[in-house]
Amino acid sequence: MSDVGVLSAHLLSVFQKELFTRLAAAGHEQLRPRHGAVLAHLGPDGSRASELSERSGQHKQVIGTLIDELEHLGYVTRQPDPADRRAKLVVPTAAGRDQMVQARRIVADIEDGFARRVGPERFAEFKAVFAEITRRS
Amino acid sequence: MSDVGVLSAHLLSVFQKELFTRLAAAGHEQLRPRHGAVLAHLGPDGSRASELSERSGQHKQVIGTLIDELEHLGYVTRQPDPADRRAKLVVPTAAGRDQMVQARRIVADIEDGFARRVGPERFAEFKAVFAEITRRS
Repeated sequence: MSDVGVLSAHLLSVFQKELFTRLAAAGHEQLRPRHGAVLAHLGPDGSRASELSERSGQHKQVIGTLIDELEHLGYVTRQPDPADRRAKLVVPTAAGRDQMVQARRIVADIEDGFARRVGPERFAEFKAVFAEITRRS
Repeated sequence: MSDVGVLSAHLLSVFQKELFTRLAAAGHEQLRPRHGAVLAHLGPDGSRASELSERSGQHKQVIGTLIDELEHLGYVTRQPDPADRRAKLVVPTAAGRDQMVQARRIVADIEDGFARRVGPERFAEFKAVFAEITRRS
């Protein structure tokens, strides 16, 4: 039996391949799986880079590079944070908001496929254990 | 509730951080998480690059670069395949075999920790569903 590291790497690879293939078909063909570290964790009203780093588990420097790329591609802009004018918020553009809507739909569809394959109760318990294991102790 | 893509990315990150920190403490401080795509799938008597690519889900070009790095670090050598002299096998060196033994021990210990956290029966069922979901259909 494979260990949970190998299983996680496999599932992430399968998941990203399907998500980004279908996002490309929906008009988002310049996005790459690495951009998920920002896009999957971005709030609709914007998020600080430090929050994105914490939620994704990626280094601040990596997140900064990804924000640069997404800004260049027109998915996010950097704006002053109304709550703290010295801080910046990463805010989705119209293209960014469309990506978030499409991704939510595609991700739900991918998860429905998994749930059909193993049974909805087993899939729900799988996700519950997954969340318990990955929660910071 | 996070989706399985986000959960997989988190678990992979937690798992790799612990594994490679403890491998460094066991004398393998030059290895990086990216090397896992080769080392986790390498047979004790060697494997072809194409097998490593298939098992890890990484592109052949990526695997080739990782093999170059691991050869340079002294973990693997490229040797003619006895079964097909035109083909090459990637074979672990003594350092590579030591890494495999240490990694197996550390991975078992990480999984024991997860099993204690959620209960051994739930963890076994979690891994069973994980394997069913990631299996190619």
